[in-house]
Amino acid sequence: MNLPSKILEQAVEQLSTLPGVGKRSALRYALHLMKQDELSVRDLSESLLRLKTDLHHCRHCHNVSDTEICPICSSEKRQRDIVCVVENVQDVMALENTQQYRGLYHVLGGIISPIDGIGPADLEIASLVKRVETGFPYPVNEVILALPTTMEGDTTNFYLSRQLRPLGVKLSTLARGLAVGDSLEYADEITLGRSIVGRIPFEG
Amino acid sequence: MNLPSKILEQAVEQLSTLPGVGKRSALRYALHLMKQDELSVRDLSESLLRLKTDLHHCRHCHNVSDTEICPICSSEKRQRDIVCVVENVQDVMALENTQQYRGLYHVLGGIISPIDGIGPADLEIASLVKRVETGFPYPVNEVILALPTTMEGDTTNFYLSRQLRPLGVKLSTLARGLAVGDSLEYADEITLGRSIVGRIPFEG
Repeated sequence: MNLPSKILEQAVEQLSTLPGVGKRSALRYALHLMKQDELSVRDLSESLLRLKTDLHHCRHCHNVSDTEICPICSSEKRQRDIVCVVENVQDVMALENTQQYRGLYHVLGGIISPIDGIGPADLEIASLVKRVETGFPYPVNEVILALPTTMEGDTTNFYLSRQLRPLGVKLSTLARGLAVGDSLEYADEITLGRSIVGRIPFEG
Repeated sequence: MNLPSKILEQAVEQLSTLPGVGKRSALRYALHLMKQDELSVRDLSESLLRLKTDLHHCRHCHNVSDTEICPICSSEKRQRDIVCVVENVQDVMALENTQQYRGLYHVLGGIISPIDGIGPADLEIASLVKRVETGFPYPVNEVILALPTTMEGDTTNFYLSRQLRPLGVKLSTLARGLAVGDSLEYADEITLGRSIVGRIPFEG
């Protein structure tokens, strides 16, 4: 793109490093910001910087947090002996939105993916094992493996189970089956197969 | 959305004011930035602010520019007696990319659109008329009306022709190679190039 200004070019260049943002969208964002009043652009600029300077990862569960220990880990209303292992911060939010889970979390920050060069050492796995091993901050009775049902997720589940099982902790994973609203006709064979093998008592 | 952090919430709130960006994309951008090194986030933050503080509109043609007079207006290689009137900055870039036009520009900063509450006084129309009237910075022989071929574009063309025709300046418009409803920004270069080379007298 042939931009008429170095300043505009720099902003476009840097905005287009955001995931899924191309040069054209970046230009649209930049020209939009140029039309806003200075105060709101300053607010945006500052809150982006604060993402790096003031935002923390919780020391226990590695979820994002304004404080050193996140509100979930420090809440006395949570069931502290269950830890749900998830890939990322969005997954914590998705589970919290269900309002069905009252335990704690552990955010791995990714999953094992050799093709992307992500190994166990790049993830918060050692800290999870240590958490179960030492019972700090709270003793753990059950670890729920809530990773994506992909090959990478399965690989990570397998790796984690190898690390955690010797510690005598109970391991579970999310139920596999039909999604609410699914019809059998359009469900994929593997899901349908699993849902009939792992059928549950009918609560009529 | 139920975000675990005020700082994250603020960033998401402000990122989602960008055009076409929803809460979910804003969250993805924020979490992406959180993973980058501080220097590059600081660079982004600063260049966004510079869009407001250091970027100017050219005093003559109102295109964006790092300097008070833009490179096009100050270039001695341009044909200075032709002024091409466009809606916005993107349109200047689109025309420059065709490499078919060697005259100057005048960026209106929008088009007349009563439904959006945009009237002639909100646009750089008075300055265009003055530019033709006074011959400052350069005497104008021809004004090319290169607005979108929409109803708003036609309305603006008509309004401009009423203002400019009494001044004895030659008026032309882009050849109708453009389909009705197209905007300049997304037209392919060949069509756009042909339409400015084969411009036709404006029948207001």
